[in-house]
Amino acid sequence: MTWTVVDRESGTPLFRQIYESFRRRILQGELEEGERLPSTRELASSLQVSRTVIVEAYEQLLAEGYIEGRHGSGTFVAEGTHLLQAAPAGLARSVSAVPPQSFEGAPARKRELIDFRHGIPALDLFPRKLWGELAKRIWADASAEAFGYGRPEGRHELRSVLARYLRRSRGVVCEPEQLLVTTGATQAISLIAKLLLTGKSDVLMEDPLTYEIHTMFSLPGAKLHPIPVDESGMMTELLPAGIHPKFIYVTPSHQFPIGGVLPIQRRVQLIQYAARTGSYIVEDDYDSEFRYESAPVSSLQGLDPERVVYIGTFSKILSPALRMGYVILPPSLVQNARSLKWLTDLHTPSLEQLVLAEFIEEGHLDRHIAKMKKLYRKRRDFLIRQLRHAFGEAVNILGHSTGIHLVAEFAGISFTPKLLSVIEDNGVKVYPVTVHAFRKDVQKRRIIIGYGNLSEERIAEGIRRLSELLKK
Amino acid sequence: MTWTVVDRESGTPLFRQIYESFRRRILQGELEEGERLPSTRELASSLQVSRTVIVEAYEQLLAEGYIEGRHGSGTFVAEGTHLLQAAPAGLARSVSAVPPQSFEGAPARKRELIDFRHGIPALDLFPRKLWGELAKRIWADASAEAFGYGRPEGRHELRSVLARYLRRSRGVVCEPEQLLVTTGATQAISLIAKLLLTGKSDVLMEDPLTYEIHTMFSLPGAKLHPIPVDESGMMTELLPAGIHPKFIYVTPSHQFPIGGVLPIQRRVQLIQYAARTGSYIVEDDYDSEFRYESAPVSSLQGLDPERVVYIGTFSKILSPALRMGYVILPPSLVQNARSLKWLTDLHTPSLEQLVLAEFIEEGHLDRHIAKMKKLYRKRRDFLIRQLRHAFGEAVNILGHSTGIHLVAEFAGISFTPKLLSVIEDNGVKVYPVTVHAFRKDVQKRRIIIGYGNLSEERIAEGIRRLSELLKK
Repeated sequence: MTWTVVDRESGTPLFRQIYESFRRRILQGELEEGERLPSTRELASSLQVSRTVIVEAYEQLLAEGYIEGRHGSGTFVAEGTHLLQAAPAGLARSVSAVPPQSFEGAPARKRELIDFRHGIPALDLFPRKLWGELAKRIWADASAEAFGYGRPEGRHELRSVLARYLRRSRGVVCEPEQLLVTTGATQAISLIAKLLLTGKSDVLMEDPLTYEIHTMFSLPGAKLHPIPVDESGMMTELLPAGIHPKFIYVTPSHQFPIGGVLPIQRRVQLIQYAARTGSYIVEDDYDSEFRYESAPVSSLQGLDPERVVYIGTFSKILSPALRMGYVILPPSLVQNARSLKWLTDLHTPSLEQLVLAEFIEEGHLDRHIAKMKKLYRKRRDFLIRQLRHAFGEAVNILGHSTGIHLVAEFAGISFTPKLLSVIEDNGVKVYPVTVHAFRKDVQKRRIIIGYGNLSEERIAEGIRRLSELLKK
Repeated sequence: MTWTVVDRESGTPLFRQIYESFRRRILQGELEEGERLPSTRELASSLQVSRTVIVEAYEQLLAEGYIEGRHGSGTFVAEGTHLLQAAPAGLARSVSAVPPQSFEGAPARKRELIDFRHGIPALDLFPRKLWGELAKRIWADASAEAFGYGRPEGRHELRSVLARYLRRSRGVVCEPEQLLVTTGATQAISLIAKLLLTGKSDVLMEDPLTYEIHTMFSLPGAKLHPIPVDESGMMTELLPAGIHPKFIYVTPSHQFPIGGVLPIQRRVQLIQYAARTGSYIVEDDYDSEFRYESAPVSSLQGLDPERVVYIGTFSKILSPALRMGYVILPPSLVQNARSLKWLTDLHTPSLEQLVLAEFIEEGHLDRHIAKMKKLYRKRRDFLIRQLRHAFGEAVNILGHSTGIHLVAEFAGISFTPKLLSVIEDNGVKVYPVTVHAFRKDVQKRRIIIGYGNLSEERIAEGIRRLSELLKK
């Protein structure tokens, strides 16, 4: 393999030069499908750049589907990436590589995989009968107008109900006019990126934070500044002086993935910093309805509605398949966000918005959340007991106050791709924090364990399998 | 009002310089909400640039909601556009300007408006009872897995059924793997723009063509080359030499809005040109199921599946509120398109895809299309008779072979904003072709008349009102 020499004088960041060189070589078939890439260490040394640069380039390629990691055996050119091989015969192969979170099942293996994937609610408990009845009623009764083109911000019925619900349950201060209904929180995040990241932009974000968000912000060319988190969320004392970020991206109610809840002192620091630097704050509130120690913490948005963009979703409290999310915008951003949504997909499906509005209005959402919270608390407590039982003091449990995942940190164990692959071969899948981290070293002992969609029986069996391996 | 002098030496196109200057001044409140903008003629002369440049800048501002046209009285800064006026009191005003097509109703006036808006199917005839029953059944019976995160390309059930349906009904050659389910055709178009328009890109498109598509391609910085259409669609003999467009955007089954059906000679010319210049062809097939003179014409895609990206929608054959569209990709683009969709909104809602798949599979779609085609043909014939009766030889009717709109051209009449406003004040709304045109002058006698959602009674009354005014 020969490599393009990187050009340190050009304005293009090194990671992007390397990313683009790989991308071109893969598309042109110069790197063949299934070909093994050099390790990040190897390549860093041969190109004389820091390993972070290579990791960043590889992650970009990974996120875009050009390459795929096979646990324990390295990184390979994904199938279906060769642009010129357009013969239909090549097609069946082009579909094997899909974005990492989109696998619906796992290949057949010796024993059934117990998957501690995070962010998945109890799928078997979705109120499907009730929802179906409501849907039938709405489809029958809606006005003819509802079957035409709608408005980019979504149905007024849903926005009114939602504004009331959020005021009551989350301390969010907003008028229905500030709400924009989106296809899940992901679309809200990508709209915000398009809206605010123009030209050269600085973005501050927590480290770690969902890796897909890294990609969504770095694709439009933003410079990402990771701010470390501890067990109380973003370490606001480390907010950098001398830059004027477009926005600061935070998950203050339940830091993802570490799980801290941002204390008010840091919230104030954050808001003051944002005011000083003229930045927006983007508050991603993805699962805070499930708070076990107390009532859900109030939103950051309520503290400064003119500065905070609040993003919410029904993926965790109902189902990700609904693709229902929303964003609350400061009044000054409303009009541009609507225009952008219009140019992206006009609007989110209308009748489903009416069904959701009715579901909330009739009190079903509150009842469903209360019911699920009880169940998740039980699963969480059970999981913690199993972890304690299996590992005793060797495990440190973080971020369990809220949500449907926790983080477990194991003294003396490093979750390398090799180890994770061995664990998976033994029928249990856990998720390394390092995937989401800029500073990977400090996270290497930690895994994310999702428990929303697993019965106690499966939780017990999963932790048993894990302990068999880790205690060897 | 003082104006930034345009800089002819800078790399930035003139229209963009003017657009950005306005945008900045509006956001900063230097131009106040409600303030009247100079006419395009006035401004062109004072800046010493061509009027087209000003029109383009204004259209961009209009599409993004910064300004609004008031028929007959000029162009004004829209409300809610001042970035710094973030006081909640300003909010109610910020929502008055919405994207042009998204109005759900019209303000109260003396007599009820008869709206010949194009692209709207008969909303009162959506099979709501059947759909509701199906939805209820699907929500009850779907596997638990369907309630989790799905795959970016959409449900396999829908893609399989759709591939078969399209092969049978539209001569489309594709495997389910090439299909990506999108939130309406608009999302398919915006994904294609993101996928193919990188860096400096040339795009060829029909002139006229839906103005929102102009914006969607010019926003990422593409250079648009309008190719005139006649009554047989794009005039392929005018395809320019010496450039290598990223793609050529066409509506070959029913040119929008003029209505031509691209004859095979031009299709071949188009494909040969694309092969020679290494371009993709994007085929937007938005309503060709309703072809009255013969069976629907075959898709361009079937002629060159490796080169043609085919975009379809259920907005016209079922309902725009469903937001169900799809794109068929050459195999080489499949993987990147999936990654982009994933980073945009993960995937389109799952259960609704299953309902649609069942609706097609059980034969309801074919029956619904057959029923609606009969109705639309009747409405179309009635409309043509009314136009002939009212205007005789003074009206020329174009593009009536397909779809749910036609174009009427009136000898000696120019549909100025002033005239359109008078017409609207008289209780009837028609749509000028000029909005969608680069070369406006050749289109000024033409209006688009949509008839899908209007009863014969309302069509008759609408044409009567129109003739009262135009024959004065």
